[in-house]
Amino acid sequence: MLTAQAVVFADHGEPSEVLRTHTYEIDEKNLDANSIIVKTVGSPVNPSDINQIQGVYPSQPEKTTALGTEQPLAVCGNEGLFEILHVGSKVTNFQVGDWAVPTSVNFGTWRTHALCTADKMMKLPNPKQSKANGKKQGLTVNQGATISVNPLTAYLMVNHYVKLTPGKDWFIQNGGNSAVGKYASQIGRILGINSISVIRDRPNLEETVKDLQSTHGATHVVTEEQNNSREFNVEMKKWVDQTGGKIKLALNCVGGKSSTAVARKLGPNGLMLTYGGMSYQPVILPTSLHIFKNITSAGFWVTELLKSNPQLKRETMDQIVEWYEEGKLVDAKSVELKFDGSDLAKVYQDAIANSKDGKQLVVY
Amino acid sequence: MLTAQAVVFADHGEPSEVLRTHTYEIDEKNLDANSIIVKTVGSPVNPSDINQIQGVYPSQPEKTTALGTEQPLAVCGNEGLFEILHVGSKVTNFQVGDWAVPTSVNFGTWRTHALCTADKMMKLPNPKQSKANGKKQGLTVNQGATISVNPLTAYLMVNHYVKLTPGKDWFIQNGGNSAVGKYASQIGRILGINSISVIRDRPNLEETVKDLQSTHGATHVVTEEQNNSREFNVEMKKWVDQTGGKIKLALNCVGGKSSTAVARKLGPNGLMLTYGGMSYQPVILPTSLHIFKNITSAGFWVTELLKSNPQLKRETMDQIVEWYEEGKLVDAKSVELKFDGSDLAKVYQDAIANSKDGKQLVVY
Repeated sequence: MLTAQAVVFADHGEPSEVLRTHTYEIDEKNLDANSIIVKTVGSPVNPSDINQIQGVYPSQPEKTTALGTEQPLAVCGNEGLFEILHVGSKVTNFQVGDWAVPTSVNFGTWRTHALCTADKMMKLPNPKQSKANGKKQGLTVNQGATISVNPLTAYLMVNHYVKLTPGKDWFIQNGGNSAVGKYASQIGRILGINSISVIRDRPNLEETVKDLQSTHGATHVVTEEQNNSREFNVEMKKWVDQTGGKIKLALNCVGGKSSTAVARKLGPNGLMLTYGGMSYQPVILPTSLHIFKNITSAGFWVTELLKSNPQLKRETMDQIVEWYEEGKLVDAKSVELKFDGSDLAKVYQDAIANSKDGKQLVVY
Repeated sequence: MLTAQAVVFADHGEPSEVLRTHTYEIDEKNLDANSIIVKTVGSPVNPSDINQIQGVYPSQPEKTTALGTEQPLAVCGNEGLFEILHVGSKVTNFQVGDWAVPTSVNFGTWRTHALCTADKMMKLPNPKQSKANGKKQGLTVNQGATISVNPLTAYLMVNHYVKLTPGKDWFIQNGGNSAVGKYASQIGRILGINSISVIRDRPNLEETVKDLQSTHGATHVVTEEQNNSREFNVEMKKWVDQTGGKIKLALNCVGGKSSTAVARKLGPNGLMLTYGGMSYQPVILPTSLHIFKNITSAGFWVTELLKSNPQLKRETMDQIVEWYEEGKLVDAKSVELKFDGSDLAKVYQDAIANSKDGKQLVVY
């Protein structure tokens, strides 16, 4: 028997109040032929994980008695990196020691171990395998544990909707300094797509601009004020004209005035994808942009898109893995908290409390 | 020689100041083999015609010296019904007496006569032809002269974007008492598509609701206040649930809060088409509708859509004509002004001044 811990909740509420550790046993000796047992390598805290616990997120984990409780419980967490500990006799796609991430959201990744059927996991190369395959480098724990949301969101938004011609076309994005924003501009650079990253003014502006351009591949970085200025727009138009392309895509994770300003930069028939609303303001689009420039405004939610298309998830993840292994893509750093084996819920409650200091990753 | 008048402008400005009548001659004796001469039966004043003259509309007629002037001039007007007066020797698709409307916008319809190549006009049945074809009734001058914008806009928005299942699915629209709104609800009724028309509260509300339901085919009519009320939304949800369908399409010609309220009624993956902005407020869409309900917001501009697709215009117009001939579709009434043969610009200037009392149609 293997003793496992999971962070669970029975009722929605603030994580500090409703989360608790449930300890249970997994019988590795009598493993079902199609099942696997995994141990967690690391799993992060995403804002949506917190919103799920609070009950204000539209995608929710099922509450079940599968962990041997009388009361139905949900296990928290949606992203995580796992290592295969045991495989059932009929499992062919995994070997002990492989790395894997959940096929779908709502797996419940805030736990030390999990028992599941093999189809619930997708394989990632572990560092030894990457080396054996002649790759420049293997995935880090952070890269594996955070691959499913932000890099996939960035890749799919840049690639899945609008045909952007390398060397010519552009996308513009607000929240250019966010994790998704940094992945998007990097992916743009890898693919030869120009980008304009809009960010808020800040004390260390020059340094941030430099970092976004050199490390994170943004072709240009502008402030929200510049993006709202008619004079500066003349300058921006020159950048785009010089490449002979158009701004065909806008990525919006802010809303309000900022969403209006990025939408205004789109060329005719352009698309704005909204994947967040950091300002808590709605998307605001002048009627003339819709009618006379044929701008379309749509939403992007990686959870819903990939739920119905695991093959797309597989392909997209393979591409991200390849870029990580080649050292072409830099991951968004996380603050790591080590689980010491005592009380798992406490670790995640601390991580949630620290989330204001950056994305938190619990490593096991 | 045939003496013609056209309402022209050399420079943009207020119609009362910049419009003038240009009188010129058309040589019907030496007609080019591929050309036709038409006389105007009627042409209306659309808001976009006025905006073109003011120079605030993105689609503009070309200014030319084709009418024998030294200064380049543009002829006003985009919609109109014409009768064929003369046909060139190689013209096969028109006969004298046929009715026609311009193939494209920016034809310059505010004139007594026009000389053009035959491809610049699309045939409509005149009343004699409708009768000969055994139709219940022929087109009226108002129906022919106003067919190109509002009925086509309504038909294409309801039919061209979202698959709505007859007897089950719904669309919701604000501006339900506008000309396009009335066409849309009628077309919905003809096709078996349910509709909710949102209108502003008004003194004769009950009468307007009755008219929109009985004459104009709206399944339900609600006020903006009702559409904004959570309590009333429970009622609206019942209507939709009863048919086993969904609200898959929203038509917005108002913007602002009204656009938010109709978008909120859409089911998952619904589309809002914006074709006007009567409130002068932008389209406002909560981020969650984009991300979690996958609502898309797009624009509709009949001018641009049909510019690249004359075949679609032909097919759509044929459908509208058929419904008019069968008496299934009621046209939006216009206020008719008769041109007395003196000064054509004056007639249109009067019509523009009277536009607040309803759509104006100049008949010849």
